[in-house]
Amino acid sequence: MYLGVDYYPEQTPRALWEEDFRLMKELGVNVVRLAEFAWSMMEPEEGVYDFSFWDDVIERLSAEGFDIVLGTPTATPPAWLCTKYPEILPVDENGVTISFGARRHYTVHSETYQRLSVKITEEMAKRYGQHPRVIGWQTDNEYGHEKSDRSYGDVDRTAFQRWLENRYGTLDALNEAWGTVFWSQTYTAWEQIPVPRKVYQEHNPSLLVDFDRFCADGYTYYNKLQVDVLRRYIPENVFITHNLVYSDMAVNQQQMAQDLDYVAFDNYPVWGGLPEPNRFEKMASDHDLCRSSKQGKGFWVMEQLSGAQGWSKIGYLPRPGHIRLWTYQAVARGAEAIVYFRFRAAHFGTEEFCHGIIDHDGKPKRKFEEVKQIMTELNTYGDEINASRYDAKVGVYFDQENVWAWTHQPHSDAFDFRTEFVRFYGGAVRQQVATDIVFPGDDLSRYKLIIVPLYFLTNPTFDDALIAYMEQGGHVIFTYRTGVKDARNHVVPTTLPGKFAPYAGIEIDEYESLQSVQQHQVAGIGEMAGQSSTARLWCDLITPTTAETLAVYKDTFYEGVAAVTRNAYKGMITYIGSSIDDAMIDTIYRQAFTEAGIEMIEAPDQVEIVRRHGEKRDFLFLMNHDTKEARDVNLDGTYKVLTDEETYRGTVRLAPLETLILTT
Amino acid sequence: MYLGVDYYPEQTPRALWEEDFRLMKELGVNVVRLAEFAWSMMEPEEGVYDFSFWDDVIERLSAEGFDIVLGTPTATPPAWLCTKYPEILPVDENGVTISFGARRHYTVHSETYQRLSVKITEEMAKRYGQHPRVIGWQTDNEYGHEKSDRSYGDVDRTAFQRWLENRYGTLDALNEAWGTVFWSQTYTAWEQIPVPRKVYQEHNPSLLVDFDRFCADGYTYYNKLQVDVLRRYIPENVFITHNLVYSDMAVNQQQMAQDLDYVAFDNYPVWGGLPEPNRFEKMASDHDLCRSSKQGKGFWVMEQLSGAQGWSKIGYLPRPGHIRLWTYQAVARGAEAIVYFRFRAAHFGTEEFCHGIIDHDGKPKRKFEEVKQIMTELNTYGDEINASRYDAKVGVYFDQENVWAWTHQPHSDAFDFRTEFVRFYGGAVRQQVATDIVFPGDDLSRYKLIIVPLYFLTNPTFDDALIAYMEQGGHVIFTYRTGVKDARNHVVPTTLPGKFAPYAGIEIDEYESLQSVQQHQVAGIGEMAGQSSTARLWCDLITPTTAETLAVYKDTFYEGVAAVTRNAYKGMITYIGSSIDDAMIDTIYRQAFTEAGIEMIEAPDQVEIVRRHGEKRDFLFLMNHDTKEARDVNLDGTYKVLTDEETYRGTVRLAPLETLILTT
Amino acid sequence: MYLGVDYYPEQTPRALWEEDFRLMKELGVNVVRLAEFAWSMMEPEEGVYDFSFWDDVIERLSAEGFDIVLGTPTATPPAWLCTKYPEILPVDENGVTISFGARRHYTVHSETYQRLSVKITEEMAKRYGQHPRVIGWQTDNEYGHEKSDRSYGDVDRTAFQRWLENRYGTLDALNEAWGTVFWSQTYTAWEQIPVPRKVYQEHNPSLLVDFDRFCADGYTYYNKLQVDVLRRYIPENVFITHNLVYSDMAVNQQQMAQDLDYVAFDNYPVWGGLPEPNRFEKMASDHDLCRSSKQGKGFWVMEQLSGAQGWSKIGYLPRPGHIRLWTYQAVARGAEAIVYFRFRAAHFGTEEFCHGIIDHDGKPKRKFEEVKQIMTELNTYGDEINASRYDAKVGVYFDQENVWAWTHQPHSDAFDFRTEFVRFYGGAVRQQVATDIVFPGDDLSRYKLIIVPLYFLTNPTFDDALIAYMEQGGHVIFTYRTGVKDARNHVVPTTLPGKFAPYAGIEIDEYESLQSVQQHQVAGIGEMAGQSSTARLWCDLITPTTAETLAVYKDTFYEGVAAVTRNAYKGMITYIGSSIDDAMIDTIYRQAFTEAGIEMIEAPDQVEIVRRHGEKRDFLFLMNHDTKEARDVNLDGTYKVLTDEETYRGTVRLAPLETLILTT
Repeated sequence: MYLGVDYYPEQTPRALWEEDFRLMKELGVNVVRLAEFAWSMMEPEEGVYDFSFWDDVIERLSAEGFDIVLGTPTATPPAWLCTKYPEILPVDENGVTISFGARRHYTVHSETYQRLSVKITEEMAKRYGQHPRVIGWQTDNEYGHEKSDRSYGDVDRTAFQRWLENRYGTLDALNEAWGTVFWSQTYTAWEQIPVPRKVYQEHNPSLLVDFDRFCADGYTYYNKLQVDVLRRYIPENVFITHNLVYSDMAVNQQQMAQDLDYVAFDNYPVWGGLPEPNRFEKMASDHDLCRSSKQGKGFWVMEQLSGAQGWSKIGYLPRPGHIRLWTYQAVARGAEAIVYFRFRAAHFGTEEFCHGIIDHDGKPKRKFEEVKQIMTELNTYGDEINASRYDAKVGVYFDQENVWAWTHQPHSDAFDFRTEFVRFYGGAVRQQVATDIVFPGDDLSRYKLIIVPLYFLTNPTFDDALIAYMEQGGHVIFTYRTGVKDARNHVVPTTLPGKFAPYAGIEIDEYESLQSVQQHQVAGIGEMAGQSSTARLWCDLITPTTAETLAVYKDTFYEGVAAVTRNAYKGMITYIGSSIDDAMIDTIYRQAFTEAGIEMIEAPDQVEIVRRHGEKRDFLFLMNHDTKEARDVNLDGTYKVLTDEETYRGTVRLAPLETLILTT
Repeated sequence: MYLGVDYYPEQTPRALWEEDFRLMKELGVNVVRLAEFAWSMMEPEEGVYDFSFWDDVIERLSAEGFDIVLGTPTATPPAWLCTKYPEILPVDENGVTISFGARRHYTVHSETYQRLSVKITEEMAKRYGQHPRVIGWQTDNEYGHEKSDRSYGDVDRTAFQRWLENRYGTLDALNEAWGTVFWSQTYTAWEQIPVPRKVYQEHNPSLLVDFDRFCADGYTYYNKLQVDVLRRYIPENVFITHNLVYSDMAVNQQQMAQDLDYVAFDNYPVWGGLPEPNRFEKMASDHDLCRSSKQGKGFWVMEQLSGAQGWSKIGYLPRPGHIRLWTYQAVARGAEAIVYFRFRAAHFGTEEFCHGIIDHDGKPKRKFEEVKQIMTELNTYGDEINASRYDAKVGVYFDQENVWAWTHQPHSDAFDFRTEFVRFYGGAVRQQVATDIVFPGDDLSRYKLIIVPLYFLTNPTFDDALIAYMEQGGHVIFTYRTGVKDARNHVVPTTLPGKFAPYAGIEIDEYESLQSVQQHQVAGIGEMAGQSSTARLWCDLITPTTAETLAVYKDTFYEGVAAVTRNAYKGMITYIGSSIDDAMIDTIYRQAFTEAGIEMIEAPDQVEIVRRHGEKRDFLFLMNHDTKEARDVNLDGTYKVLTDEETYRGTVRLAPLETLILTT
Repeated sequence: MYLGVDYYPEQTPRALWEEDFRLMKELGVNVVRLAEFAWSMMEPEEGVYDFSFWDDVIERLSAEGFDIVLGTPTATPPAWLCTKYPEILPVDENGVTISFGARRHYTVHSETYQRLSVKITEEMAKRYGQHPRVIGWQTDNEYGHEKSDRSYGDVDRTAFQRWLENRYGTLDALNEAWGTVFWSQTYTAWEQIPVPRKVYQEHNPSLLVDFDRFCADGYTYYNKLQVDVLRRYIPENVFITHNLVYSDMAVNQQQMAQDLDYVAFDNYPVWGGLPEPNRFEKMASDHDLCRSSKQGKGFWVMEQLSGAQGWSKIGYLPRPGHIRLWTYQAVARGAEAIVYFRFRAAHFGTEEFCHGIIDHDGKPKRKFEEVKQIMTELNTYGDEINASRYDAKVGVYFDQENVWAWTHQPHSDAFDFRTEFVRFYGGAVRQQVATDIVFPGDDLSRYKLIIVPLYFLTNPTFDDALIAYMEQGGHVIFTYRTGVKDARNHVVPTTLPGKFAPYAGIEIDEYESLQSVQQHQVAGIGEMAGQSSTARLWCDLITPTTAETLAVYKDTFYEGVAAVTRNAYKGMITYIGSSIDDAMIDTIYRQAFTEAGIEMIEAPDQVEIVRRHGEKRDFLFLMNHDTKEARDVNLDGTYKVLTDEETYRGTVRLAPLETLILTT
């Protein structure tokens, strides 16, 4: 198993290298990622290349026995480049040009920048493409991060117009697709079409989603340029990846993943200024997204948090056990290589307070020992774990385009796509059910149940697949705002949930969005009687046609109207019409999973259990994400501890933040 | 009575038109507003006109028997126009040019845009001006809305300098009027004068109010251009209106109203993202403002909310009864035509979540039935109601220039003009007293009492009228910050309340502004003993000269100092020196109304009662604005229900949101 | 003693001058500050000077017997100047040019503006430099205030590059000093270096602090230009000052003070929109900073608040006693002249709601009487008070560069340098211990104890002095984040607190920043057992080497780890590792002061006691800053009241806001 560190020799006095290499070996490191921000070192002026420093570094690391992943340095165009070609700088929605002085200060749509990026990539590939220790390449760094996904300059506008011409062929088709008859927006020349710069009101929602598609396609295209040039110079067994940061950007990472040999992911469960780590269900969904983006293939964690992170604001200090917990969560869910960010903290630059395994004083301390323990374990058992399978019976639908549609029309000041998605994802995670993310085009037949959260912008391919799945007896959980938009981002003319109404056995005649200061109540009926929940964000007023009502609204003018329903079609089709509490989501999911014949594991709050199936034995990862409370888990049989000979059965107690790996 | 819908055939598949017309007739519609955003359809390129679509629409609607109001389409300059004449785009206070892509993206001060607007208006007028079914015209749409009232570009700056030259004649006069000797701002050439773009501190308050006057004059002038060209082509009995949106903009809507045949108003008691509808007192004041802007003449509601509204955030879902309640509130207070926005929801464009009578699925449902009931009633009784009189004995002063002065100097982070104005307005509404808005220049003698809220920027015409009124025995209620500024927006050199001090019988030697985190207490004395209130926003420390003290401050260093006073001049002059609670406002108003011989009706909280006087019989509108509680009203005699033969006397119970119309 | 008013004859009708002069004399005024915003009057067009108005004013004031301080008018470049030389206008971080229309609309780095400023200053100096009544000059007004400290335009960028070239000599040196190897920021030409305009992320912290140094040097240089030209035309005994506003700006006021004869200060304990005055400890530290900036020399308060202040938001109304209290606080701590802002309120302009001694109605009232009392007292006793000494045994370190470093990296959303500095300053003020501010380069040997709050960006000169001080037995109190950065703003490679670790007897192996929603607990141990505190903002996890632990953390994973320590080196070295409550700061300071042999006075909450040592007698200023509660102070002997013959011993009761001045 590859275990490594992100290392910055260029930021480290040479006098310390030898000691650093020794400490890396003590840790158990076998791979090092290098050079992803080193453009100005390699090309100090245009067309003049100087690889002497990196020759030396690579020689030294190779000699020490480390494998190497090299990053192309295009996330940080040098000062000389920005001065010479200022048109590559991005522009914000107010027309302000982003200054040189940090990173990601380029627009991906600049042909000039594309050309210069290909050139430096080619030079690096020529130099190191055949080096026996260079086992992989990372293109650029965190595409689109930190608002670099959308640029609104003249370069972008021209490229957008060209992209639209390519997509629509004629202005008539575009005008029809965007509904430009509204507010007199009909375009009579491609040159008239704007990028969504500042307006007094809001832009056309169809333009907005197309602009996001354009931005995402720009990144996919740009990445492919680098992949193609690298591939010309590197052996077939040397991989190409990119370190994605899955968030709500105008980048389609799943699409891009198809051009990469591996997905890589930068795993920061907490970051600068956050008072608490993210929910573990969020991290679970991130890992599942990575693994599923590449059809279940294991992924690299290219940056695994190993200390408090932050720039001007420094974040939460990871507690003892956190690094191990977060590492094993990733491994359990499909990470097959872990690279820690960063080996040692920098003494200068914007990221000087991004702490690593070793802090500014260079002394191995608590975090060093924790990483060393992990690497010792994984150097022993990692390959076997990687060889085992993560076997999901539940799929959860995700489509980046749907995220964009929601981002532009959140309906409520309280709605955040990722938060809500994780709430509906978490219902499965908390039942300890293995979950895949499914994308448009994926085969659904392998799953016993599909969760389709927040299916606002529909996709015709997925519509067809999902209907076929239901016709074949598939079980589905839908949520509020299902089926609202077609792919053009138009509202459909059928009663909601649109084409899914007959399957869900309901019609939605009215609905209401709730702002953050508002909430209603929901009460279970029938077998859910006695259970209640707040209803936030959105209330679908459901009229069941053939469905059974599971819960109704209270204390509003639509008191008694159905809020949650279940319809026996061929499989069971559940519809959740509001943002209800986690506890009620859990109840509904447990019913639906039971109907679908999906095995669950009962576990206490904050505990995550993942099972991987190996050829010889299974691995059971028990992870307590609670920082303060120990938790008891009831085992369904007899297990051995992975790393020693201890045997468990019955109840096992997990200390706060403890990770226990059992085997059958 | 005209009852109608806002209809967008251009956004509706032709296949649905026939069914739409049938449903409109089922509703009781007799008028349709059309075409106010259709410029690019009518003039697809400069100077090329194509009215074929609208010919067809107008023909079809006429054939169905509907009358038509046409909107000029200038709120949405087409893409070709903005590309060809980019100088028409507005500019924000940071110098950012507002992009094409939404609406109202023009500066009213652009001569180019004025010329192009006149031309399209003229072409429309030529085409449809003599059409027998076109009964009226709406100019543009919601002037100044959504921050389009103020533009800060070069075009605006030049126009502002010209406007100032015209206003002041000489730079000496301007320098004197603005007090430019302060901070070395003396102008020695007109070209030096800025529009109020970003500064580190704050602009000269006299410049700011003059800039608002300039912006408002620009809109008045621009509207008059359209009125004049329309008038040349349309018969005398065809009316011209504009749909105003009364808010705190740099538009003087009462001034503009004098150039229109009718005032029209877009009545949205709740809108996107608001968790609750506005206070009914706010809506009451809006309707009174409309009616009073045109000397008591009935107005059109050109857009009456008929469903949840919103763009990216969707608003509050109107409860059953809300549409009827808000319609009758408008009718009771002077609306003589109601046009519902919109007949059906759009499937695309920024306003696709502005819901109408019919939702995206095209099915008539709850809202359809409610509108149908209203139209049935008003088609029967509407004309008689319109013919009756709304007879106000109380006038409430309002001057748009005063709003501007407050906007630039709110004194406290908690001050919002409209909110405070409505609080002092509401004191009359809650006593069920009929109220007119009075403007500078209006005749005051018809009123038994004048309320003068927040009279900060004074107007010499109104000063004279008010003093004459008081000298003739008129009763007046003043509030804090009376008489502070002269028309130049200079602080007056006399002890406050300035020239009103002898009438109010007080002097204000000190005062304090309170921020949102601060409040003091006020306690009634004398006949108000036992009553207490918080004191927010502002505290005038009043020294009565001849006045009687009604309430004093508590728990501050000015404990015991007068906060509310009453002076028997000829009539009674009340002065309220702080932002006290509604309950204390009510007590003070009841005293003042009693003194002035004004009849009140006692009614429970959230109930509004409006009486209209007809030739044969009076109409009594009883409206319960509470969404949850029924309310009992005691009648002063025997009444019949308008729509049936039932008779009421004594106590009548209003269900939540019920509107009951009684007649004598 | 000089007692005066800020007077604006140019904003006052001539008809009022005579009465104004009479009232000034009634107050006790002997000096008037004039003309600091009067450029457009003096130079109505470029090169044309007209001093007639000011000749008249100065003549009249002289005739009345007033001395005069003249301000150069460069804070407000005239309209003609900005139109003719638009390149002098400042630019914000988004590239928006600041408009003419308020004040401070120039960039100090403009050579054009430097030239024009020198010229008007020279003309004024020629005209009035030898006038017998002109006793002093104020350069400009409040340098850097209201965000005018940093400008980001092309002029600034060029000047910054030149400044850097001068500072570093070579690009290699700059690249090394900034660590530009991070994120590929290596500069290969001076022209590539940006000013810190908008980036997606954050700029290089070394660049940011150097940009602040550059801005501050720009102001120092600009001020020196004015000083030098004035000095050429004025007698030696005529002083030059500048009215500083000590805040967190990119201006180094202590450095600038060395070019001035006096420090002047604008003393506003409360300002527009603040619901409460600043803490008295804050004001105390401001005065100490003024006095210490000029090596203990008495300073001028050039603007002393005398009424509610504000622009669009009006502030807190000073209570009866506040003007006297704040005046004596300044006098007790070193102000040797007091000039009240402003004599009368303006009727126009942005500052029309900056209230003065006399309000808009021109009537002498409460504030007039309070100022008159003060001037009467100080005209009698002021010179003797000024001649007495403020004798500090405690020094508190302050360095403007450290403020800048914190400003760019506050670590937590809850951190504000000034607030935290005042908290650690206040611990001394509340023990009624006289305090000096010490700057890098100051002699420490005169102090018994040095407090070094928030010593994040270290200074090598001070490091050496402090270590020498500790080696000679000095006592020191350190706080969290001591010794983190070197002068380049790089993190040091040694375990914290860096070079101070052996003196503090501790090592800090980990730390955590807390956001505003977070807090931990700290509990005293040993002699501090039983005392507890919240721990906010920052937690150093301290490992004592030789130190004794005074308090430990509770309820977190580092429960039991030391939070506060004390090390007996030669003197006692205290280290406070978190932002603990005032009460615990007080306990720790009392221990440390006792160890260092510093006398304290026990006084109730909100009471400030300052002792000045005179040749014949001492002055004891007892000041109760509480607006509502009386406070009892126990005297250590028998004192007389300064202004009458009353004698006090034992307990003396101070009314709310009372100032009592006693003598030995």
